[in-house]
Amino acid sequence: MIRAGVVGASGLAGGDLIRLITQHPDLELTFLGGSSHVGRRPAELHPGLRQDLGLTVEPVTEEVADRVDVLFLATPAPVSADLAALLADRVPAIVDLSGAFRIRTPELHDRWYPKVQRRPDLAERFVYGVPELLGDRLKDAALISLPGCYATALTLGLAPLTLGLGLDLGTVLVDGKSGSSGGGLQLRTSELHALRNGAIAPYSPTGHRHAAEASDFLAREGRGSIASLSMSAYGVSHVRGLLTSTYVFPAGPVDQRELHRAYLRFYKGHRFVRVRRHNETLIPVPDPQAVLGSNYCDVTVLHDPEADRIVVLAALDNLVKGAAGQAVQAANLRFGLPEESGLTMQPVMPA
Amino acid sequence: MIRAGVVGASGLAGGDLIRLITQHPDLELTFLGGSSHVGRRPAELHPGLRQDLGLTVEPVTEEVADRVDVLFLATPAPVSADLAALLADRVPAIVDLSGAFRIRTPELHDRWYPKVQRRPDLAERFVYGVPELLGDRLKDAALISLPGCYATALTLGLAPLTLGLGLDLGTVLVDGKSGSSGGGLQLRTSELHALRNGAIAPYSPTGHRHAAEASDFLAREGRGSIASLSMSAYGVSHVRGLLTSTYVFPAGPVDQRELHRAYLRFYKGHRFVRVRRHNETLIPVPDPQAVLGSNYCDVTVLHDPEADRIVVLAALDNLVKGAAGQAVQAANLRFGLPEESGLTMQPVMPA
Amino acid sequence: MIRAGVVGASGLAGGDLIRLITQHPDLELTFLGGSSHVGRRPAELHPGLRQDLGLTVEPVTEEVADRVDVLFLATPAPVSADLAALLADRVPAIVDLSGAFRIRTPELHDRWYPKVQRRPDLAERFVYGVPELLGDRLKDAALISLPGCYATALTLGLAPLTLGLGLDLGTVLVDGKSGSSGGGLQLRTSELHALRNGAIAPYSPTGHRHAAEASDFLAREGRGSIASLSMSAYGVSHVRGLLTSTYVFPAGPVDQRELHRAYLRFYKGHRFVRVRRHNETLIPVPDPQAVLGSNYCDVTVLHDPEADRIVVLAALDNLVKGAAGQAVQAANLRFGLPEESGLTMQPVMPA
Amino acid sequence: MIRAGVVGASGLAGGDLIRLITQHPDLELTFLGGSSHVGRRPAELHPGLRQDLGLTVEPVTEEVADRVDVLFLATPAPVSADLAALLADRVPAIVDLSGAFRIRTPELHDRWYPKVQRRPDLAERFVYGVPELLGDRLKDAALISLPGCYATALTLGLAPLTLGLGLDLGTVLVDGKSGSSGGGLQLRTSELHALRNGAIAPYSPTGHRHAAEASDFLAREGRGSIASLSMSAYGVSHVRGLLTSTYVFPAGPVDQRELHRAYLRFYKGHRFVRVRRHNETLIPVPDPQAVLGSNYCDVTVLHDPEADRIVVLAALDNLVKGAAGQAVQAANLRFGLPEESGLTMQPVMPA
Repeated sequence: MIRAGVVGASGLAGGDLIRLITQHPDLELTFLGGSSHVGRRPAELHPGLRQDLGLTVEPVTEEVADRVDVLFLATPAPVSADLAALLADRVPAIVDLSGAFRIRTPELHDRWYPKVQRRPDLAERFVYGVPELLGDRLKDAALISLPGCYATALTLGLAPLTLGLGLDLGTVLVDGKSGSSGGGLQLRTSELHALRNGAIAPYSPTGHRHAAEASDFLAREGRGSIASLSMSAYGVSHVRGLLTSTYVFPAGPVDQRELHRAYLRFYKGHRFVRVRRHNETLIPVPDPQAVLGSNYCDVTVLHDPEADRIVVLAALDNLVKGAAGQAVQAANLRFGLPEESGLTMQPVMPA
Repeated sequence: MIRAGVVGASGLAGGDLIRLITQHPDLELTFLGGSSHVGRRPAELHPGLRQDLGLTVEPVTEEVADRVDVLFLATPAPVSADLAALLADRVPAIVDLSGAFRIRTPELHDRWYPKVQRRPDLAERFVYGVPELLGDRLKDAALISLPGCYATALTLGLAPLTLGLGLDLGTVLVDGKSGSSGGGLQLRTSELHALRNGAIAPYSPTGHRHAAEASDFLAREGRGSIASLSMSAYGVSHVRGLLTSTYVFPAGPVDQRELHRAYLRFYKGHRFVRVRRHNETLIPVPDPQAVLGSNYCDVTVLHDPEADRIVVLAALDNLVKGAAGQAVQAANLRFGLPEESGLTMQPVMPA
Repeated sequence: MIRAGVVGASGLAGGDLIRLITQHPDLELTFLGGSSHVGRRPAELHPGLRQDLGLTVEPVTEEVADRVDVLFLATPAPVSADLAALLADRVPAIVDLSGAFRIRTPELHDRWYPKVQRRPDLAERFVYGVPELLGDRLKDAALISLPGCYATALTLGLAPLTLGLGLDLGTVLVDGKSGSSGGGLQLRTSELHALRNGAIAPYSPTGHRHAAEASDFLAREGRGSIASLSMSAYGVSHVRGLLTSTYVFPAGPVDQRELHRAYLRFYKGHRFVRVRRHNETLIPVPDPQAVLGSNYCDVTVLHDPEADRIVVLAALDNLVKGAAGQAVQAANLRFGLPEESGLTMQPVMPA
Repeated sequence: MIRAGVVGASGLAGGDLIRLITQHPDLELTFLGGSSHVGRRPAELHPGLRQDLGLTVEPVTEEVADRVDVLFLATPAPVSADLAALLADRVPAIVDLSGAFRIRTPELHDRWYPKVQRRPDLAERFVYGVPELLGDRLKDAALISLPGCYATALTLGLAPLTLGLGLDLGTVLVDGKSGSSGGGLQLRTSELHALRNGAIAPYSPTGHRHAAEASDFLAREGRGSIASLSMSAYGVSHVRGLLTSTYVFPAGPVDQRELHRAYLRFYKGHRFVRVRRHNETLIPVPDPQAVLGSNYCDVTVLHDPEADRIVVLAALDNLVKGAAGQAVQAANLRFGLPEESGLTMQPVMPA
């Protein structure tokens, strides 16, 4: 059994990490860390997780290195940055779910993470943890920086066009829609149910750091280029799951069938990305409710012949494929386990 | 008192028309028409509207002309087309809430309303009923074609740029988000609460006829041109209200303050359009929950300097400013009443 | 015009008071009071209420007496108690929406409002403000204590049995279900959308002070007695509106038709209580969504022949008939205005 | 591997059966039956379940006996009755999720299932499938009749009082609250999202057949008696999960601690019933959101000293512990598998 620890155990991503690790056949939960809620049991912090795990939240020190093989950091970026610096050479594997080490271009990093001091030496040791695209590099990676939830959807949606077909995309526009769990459990008036329910909240109308992150990554890896990638993000009235709508204006002629086939081809063998036709089931897809609780990212690509634009839709559960599930998936690859180990749960729909 | 009739009395827009007319100081509800639910009282069809109005649903014949001064058609486009042909020369004022007479360009009409035969002679007698833009033409208009709900938001959002500032816009992208009341009460599996709640449903991902309608109107009126206007529409998890996000890439330099002021100037004196700053209140605005039940359209314009794009957000209650309320507003202008007569209700928020 | 002030202007009931007063033909809003948010305009605190009222939140002093004819206290009970003591002899009319003066039996008061010191002299000058039952006493009442939201539904549901038919009821059980607006805007983790949406939260499973209040009132007024009245309260997954289910085991034989007729008779002439048949419309009623935004209380009485029990269901909008609307209704009676003045808005349904 | 078939594969319980069987280490899905949607693949009917199972919906004939070891009937009661008659002696194990064979008292059966002809010979061969109470009898049971969703919660909530403590209960009142998935996918106007969202729908205010079922079962098994058990049921505004509130007036003295301990004792060793304290975690429990997607039933017992009543709260996921999960649990016992096989998934919360 691989011994796993979770720091940030009281948050929503931390809760889903606990859920997934305790369901995992090859991982064993041996440590819960955090600076608040010290001494509390998981069941007190996560109403669904009631079994006694024999663990309480503890402060993180260097000694955690003796108790874990892999440490998941579900902490704010500045905390992750400090913990990574402390533990990078002591813990066999660290999977950081924050944005501390996602963006490599210095100006972009400073623009979107001004409170996280850059540590170039440490940063370049991190592998960007999107298993469908960089799976090979995750094998034996000691340090993994997990993409943001929106960035995961966005990148998985665009990669078949840029990395796959090698298209040069001009202006790319992303409209992201997510539920309230994306905001965590921070106390804010605008997140109270009375004000948040029924909302379409334009919370990041003119930019989102996950777009910068995706842009930075695709430029780094890319065959196809992207001239400009901008994003607006909205909170809508459900709890779990997000959808990215990516609008692309291709330079040359495009065919709906070819596009769909290219996506199928690109994700062949990658069970967690489901390339779907828009009308293949009871409801229009992709829709995050059809992936709820699972590690799937559903992707649909459509050509709009009238405006000659490509519409790429990608849906995922922001706490699973957008956080805890992808973290486990990356750890599976890191430790040579089957990629799907502990992640075979099907979506809970309707919910 | 002006005698008002509602055809399509059993639908959601019909219900809100009944609600607004019975609250109106100068209108009197004298006729309810429909082809289904004949003989039923409004209270049977609309659970909230329980007072006895002394009316039941009746089939529509020419004789309705003796009983109404204004007839609101909250009917499917083909039905509206037939009723308008029958009654145009008999009823003093007809306000059609359907799409039958909205699009003037023949090819566009046929593309989006293939089941509604064009009647050019009749169509050109209709005034497009967006009071903030064509208010003068509504005075004494016998035939009024009301914009679609999305088209209203979209047009009110873009007009200050094109009609006001005279900007030539290149590619314009619209991402529309609406609640389930937009789909009416038609029985469809995908609209059952169990499947629709929690959804982000990409129901019209590659085009929407309201975009064609807005495009057609703005081109007709326009000083500033629009090279291409495309739209994708999503159903999100609430009932009443919609938001349009319109993304524009301006040719020249743009200033946030100037933009906001231009919008304020353009809508000066128009009480139903509220130009708002994004962060002026407890929640990010515009948000349709902040206009619920009212005739307001909230508009915010933002400049994204990094991508050099303009983001225009417009929120309204699709059954009020997007249907019944705007219909009453247009009728008020038609009959020389104060524009706000019967429409002074404030938003019911939170709800 | 009657000059009205609102203390507690930043809360949800305060917001609905502002909404209703600004829509009222005979009231004029002349004062906004509060201890927090001093200097803020209503539009900053209530996203829907954007018009400029020329008022900001001010601290309350004795001088408010020069500026208002009626003062609505939408404040916590201890604050209301202090303000009432300060202003009772200075302001012509005070309508207190808190629980400070609702319960008259000393032990009951101390049990449920331990932080509100009893002031018997002041308390006995307050009239309990349930207009349908004590309307006559509200005329010229200088001090009005408004019932709680659940207490209003509960009392209006039971009154036809006890005060009307004079039945002696044995054990009465109440199961109350309400939306998240009942909890106000206090920041609590359990009220965050992510944790509150989708909940059935048993927040007061073994007792609720509104039951004590209703019990105290009915005993005071009562012809029919109640041996024991107990209540459990649950938060369910919407924002505005509540339903009380009251289960009664009558001593003698009961007939469904007679019951319904007795309720109709009892509320004859009271337009804000709508006695409804359970299946008279599209959805089972009463349902709070069918009264949303309005001052109605919908009541249905049913006999369950198998268990020989009476089921009384009462639905209302907790912020309107359960708070701001009923406050305005009581003020209307106090000042000799038509009871419905400013309260004729119909329910906004669906929402 | 045990070969499993599902009849009623297109419904919601059918969908969750498919989900659970495909995640089960010891069951293999070998047959999908139904009279509608013949020829359709599961992915077309259940948007979340996209993997290719190599199966399509087929009509059910006697030949299914060659293809399955256990057949789950997620069919309407009349269909289940016919299928059971056809297949009882041919298929090794049948688990019926309908109400066809739940009630044994003839008058009660005819009262609540008038369309299901009684077949006493067949009925008495069925074991009532509530594993925590009748687990021993499920071993080797050929025919299993699964309790209704409400009946499961109700029975698990009351059993420690009657079967455990042997209390004689007088009048017992149940108030049930459930989400929209309880109504299945039948097309009804009142179940459209636009009318169902935000509702508190009193759909069965004066009785529910699951109460009759629980009453019948407890009387059959009982040590403690129940004088009268009545129920009212409400639809509230979420999709998955139900709560039963059971109000009991005990004859003798009661102690909160003793009660809680008695419940803990009664369910010792039964991992799927979690006896919880009301305030042990972030939100008041039990709450169905804290069991979502899992096979848990959370139970809390409280004493209300003022009214001297016992309040028993029980929450479960109506499609899992109230249907598909409990069906798998019963089948596990039937085939000598570990009770939790395939059912170890933790709740997906928040969702």
